[in-house]
Amino acid sequence: MVLEAARPLGSETVPSAEALGRVLTASVVSGRSLPPDDNSAMDGYALRAADLAAGPVELPVVYEVPAGARAPRPLASGEAARILTGAPLPSGADAVVRQEDAERIGERVRIPAGPLSGEFVCRSGENVRRTGEDVAAGDTALEDGCRLGPAQLGMLASLGRTTVAVHARPLVALLSGGDELVEPDGDVSGGRIVSSNSYTLAAACREVGAEARYLGIARDEPADIEHRLRTGLRCDALVTSAGVSVGDHDHVRGVLQKLGCRLLCFGVRMKPGYPFVFGRFEEGAGPLLFGLPGNPVSALVTFEQFVRPALLAMAGHTTLHRPRISVTVAETLTKKAGRLHFVRVRLERCGREVRARSTGNQSSGVLRSMTEAQGLLIFPAEATRLAAGEQAEVQLLDESFLAWHGPGF
Amino acid sequence: MVLEAARPLGSETVPSAEALGRVLTASVVSGRSLPPDDNSAMDGYALRAADLAAGPVELPVVYEVPAGARAPRPLASGEAARILTGAPLPSGADAVVRQEDAERIGERVRIPAGPLSGEFVCRSGENVRRTGEDVAAGDTALEDGCRLGPAQLGMLASLGRTTVAVHARPLVALLSGGDELVEPDGDVSGGRIVSSNSYTLAAACREVGAEARYLGIARDEPADIEHRLRTGLRCDALVTSAGVSVGDHDHVRGVLQKLGCRLLCFGVRMKPGYPFVFGRFEEGAGPLLFGLPGNPVSALVTFEQFVRPALLAMAGHTTLHRPRISVTVAETLTKKAGRLHFVRVRLERCGREVRARSTGNQSSGVLRSMTEAQGLLIFPAEATRLAAGEQAEVQLLDESFLAWHGPGF
Repeated sequence: MVLEAARPLGSETVPSAEALGRVLTASVVSGRSLPPDDNSAMDGYALRAADLAAGPVELPVVYEVPAGARAPRPLASGEAARILTGAPLPSGADAVVRQEDAERIGERVRIPAGPLSGEFVCRSGENVRRTGEDVAAGDTALEDGCRLGPAQLGMLASLGRTTVAVHARPLVALLSGGDELVEPDGDVSGGRIVSSNSYTLAAACREVGAEARYLGIARDEPADIEHRLRTGLRCDALVTSAGVSVGDHDHVRGVLQKLGCRLLCFGVRMKPGYPFVFGRFEEGAGPLLFGLPGNPVSALVTFEQFVRPALLAMAGHTTLHRPRISVTVAETLTKKAGRLHFVRVRLERCGREVRARSTGNQSSGVLRSMTEAQGLLIFPAEATRLAAGEQAEVQLLDESFLAWHGPGF
Repeated sequence: MVLEAARPLGSETVPSAEALGRVLTASVVSGRSLPPDDNSAMDGYALRAADLAAGPVELPVVYEVPAGARAPRPLASGEAARILTGAPLPSGADAVVRQEDAERIGERVRIPAGPLSGEFVCRSGENVRRTGEDVAAGDTALEDGCRLGPAQLGMLASLGRTTVAVHARPLVALLSGGDELVEPDGDVSGGRIVSSNSYTLAAACREVGAEARYLGIARDEPADIEHRLRTGLRCDALVTSAGVSVGDHDHVRGVLQKLGCRLLCFGVRMKPGYPFVFGRFEEGAGPLLFGLPGNPVSALVTFEQFVRPALLAMAGHTTLHRPRISVTVAETLTKKAGRLHFVRVRLERCGREVRARSTGNQSSGVLRSMTEAQGLLIFPAEATRLAAGEQAEVQLLDESFLAWHGPGF
């Protein structure tokens, strides 16, 4: 339901140098050839390969072609030109002999038939990079839907594209609710606690390239809630935490309905995170609404399952879910049937297997269960027991777990 | 050699809200308990569990405790208090009955002995979150060396820590060299080409959280090179591309030596990327020097192998290398013995195996071999043939290859 509603956002044109991680809304067709000319892949001597057919030769070096310049005139048979890496091949020449393979003698160069250093062969085209070998003018250099990483940004630079059309970044409004909440620098005496969810969720948004706008802490009264929610209506997603479950002071739901939001889902059979709400406005008239539970762990786990994939889809990505690995359960886990549990686990490699162990107290108020977690173990809804030694699937939160201790060579 | 030189940078204190992805330089010890009081995990009624021992009871609801407030007085035996999720438990009470399990009758509440909704049990401590259950005052909440992700930033917020001490971000100076080079908006007639490396490498730096400072394109003359390099001496790493190999106009090496840089490595037996140079200044007196080859692919592959792990180490990370997977070679690859080849490959899942196929023309000038690559296949130095069907190791560049098409439930 969520992914059906989370459509890729429209296109915006941004400076290429700031487009890292963005997704193209149109293919990039090259207006030029790369390389622009036949050019030398090496520092050496440009010549005609046919001149070497008969054995060792000594040729006059008639001029030099540095990188970034052109030859002053075509090269004739029986002539050589000094040439540097990247310099355009003189017309008439069809090969380059590496300087390591030649011997310079004053104004002449001696080219051996056999190896001077290493194996020496020189055919037509040797050490020459052809015009358009990388990209020819008119080629599609980058495909629509491509994610712009370092190599793609280098390609855009090479093509002279200083701006690029990409999917807009999702703008996410975050609202906390509850009279007991204060900001991190606030006074926590008298039963008040810090509203940490907005900080957690803002970071989770930024990790997937979305922009977070924090609407503050709404008091438990309809007017304040409405005032703040209206500010969020122009965003692409509106994420509330707390204030949407069945408590006496949960006014958010009523205000959302008043504002025209259709609530499509109340509660998901999962733990933590049961009281999750999802809603939409009439086509295009407002943001997707994600009502997350107030407990820090519940908020983060429902964000992971529902909001994160939606934000990635809005930004144009097609891989929306975390890496998932098979693990061995290290200690028996039990629960009642009925809800899928996301067990916060630490992971440990033991030979070829990965063992998963609970981070301890799995209360949804214990954020430490999440700060220490490397993954969420999927304990299926109808299962009641996962015995030590059984296999299970884990959504990887800490992708660096997959990194290696060495480079592999 | 590189990792021995790349030590974690010193500590800086930054706003917690801007610390996503940074690494702690000291453990965070909590100055408060989370939760701060015994509090209710549910909306319901606070009472003494012992009052329920004899069977169903009807208790007067003597007051209400909303979240963010304290009870006006202790609760006596035979009394109940309306309580909302997160509100401090009144002294005297030791359990909370969920509102779904109770029946409110005017100013009284009836608590059944058997189930009203679901299974009903109420022991001392039921639905109560204990003071310090998450973190007790004096506990280490986050360990030295911990990477700050969303959950960790939520923990800092909960503890009231609005600033945090983390390893400094590596500052990387990038310099291109060569008279043939122009900026992306420059004139590419007459054999000139765009200097794409600085854009590629700046993005690669940003991907690992380093800050890139672009020193521009140095002309092939010592004075201009020296002027620009001096600007880079205060950075943590100095990355040049081109201008450090054996060409006639390669003045960078001489200038670096003049500035006091000891060059420790000239050339690595790899392809692409042979003409890689690494250098250091006397202890702490200057940046690490990475001289990358000029070809776009060579620059990016040597960055991957040498610069990226160094920048991660400087930022305090301990997992420095890409994820690595075993693949089946899809088409036979051959080469001469002597250099390790990093073959740019596309990956495809076929059941439980992953097949790797070359992206085509592997010339180090063909950036497209890199824009289309999902990984670098390690073709060992002494090997000359990897036959179709053989196993090989791939460094994953596109980590989203590990992502799944579904969430796993």
